[in-house]
Amino acid sequence: MVARTRLKGDYCPSARSLDAIGDWWSLLIVRDAFDGVCRFSDFQKSLGIAKNILTDRLKTLVERGIFETVPVGEGKVRVEYQLTAMGRDLFPVMVALRQFGERHLFTPDEQHSQLVEKQTGLPVRLDIRTQDGRPIDAAETVILKVAED
Amino acid sequence: MVARTRLKGDYCPSARSLDAIGDWWSLLIVRDAFDGVCRFSDFQKSLGIAKNILTDRLKTLVERGIFETVPVGEGKVRVEYQLTAMGRDLFPVMVALRQFGERHLFTPDEQHSQLVEKQTGLPVRLDIRTQDGRPIDAAETVILKVAED
Repeated sequence: MVARTRLKGDYCPSARSLDAIGDWWSLLIVRDAFDGVCRFSDFQKSLGIAKNILTDRLKTLVERGIFETVPVGEGKVRVEYQLTAMGRDLFPVMVALRQFGERHLFTPDEQHSQLVEKQTGLPVRLDIRTQDGRPIDAAETVILKVAED
Repeated sequence: MVARTRLKGDYCPSARSLDAIGDWWSLLIVRDAFDGVCRFSDFQKSLGIAKNILTDRLKTLVERGIFETVPVGEGKVRVEYQLTAMGRDLFPVMVALRQFGERHLFTPDEQHSQLVEKQTGLPVRLDIRTQDGRPIDAAETVILKVAED
């Protein structure tokens, strides 16, 4: 809770994102949603997460505008959890985490899932670029701080 | 701990990345390192984190190959924490989190730090693209699963 209080007032957008997302579980819920999961029971099955933790994380993700609940089925008694436009903007975070994992956390002969373009089946790329489109790395960048009051 | 055990065997590279990074604190430590922080006391000052938590997270990040310790100063009695090549590959994760925060978590009149190209002072961009360079969004992609044994 100390972390949360502190991050909210942070001038750093990455820190605020971490605060808004919540925790690792929340990010895995978002990952599953990008993968088409939308029902409580399917999130639970996919993540092997306790019901009370899943309930809590989904509630928080809805409150923060990352998910919305959509009534479905006969009499609309069931709800599905769908990413909002804001939630879908977490896509690059998921792709960046995936790219890091693919590069460093699998042995060459070990299988892993792949994110591909639907139409071609080819892997997608993530690039950091300058405004005029040149790829750059961290060493060529700097963080401009906001002056504290 | 349940989460950690489970994620290690996951075929999903994003889940493994989350497992390797550790937790939010660890990601904020990585953020500070990209920002030039390398001393224990400076991480502590920047993050307002308890010494024992910082010690633990830095130890884990070194064990996982994200940081390395470099002896410095007279008699090399002090160490600095520097990102390894693997650690520097977390740059896109930081940029993606920052981009999400900039877009959704600040009011228009609220100041925030900015990641810019050193040479020009212009903000950097993060794009998800197809192999032939066309920008795509999540809806045009799909995750190819590995068949479970």
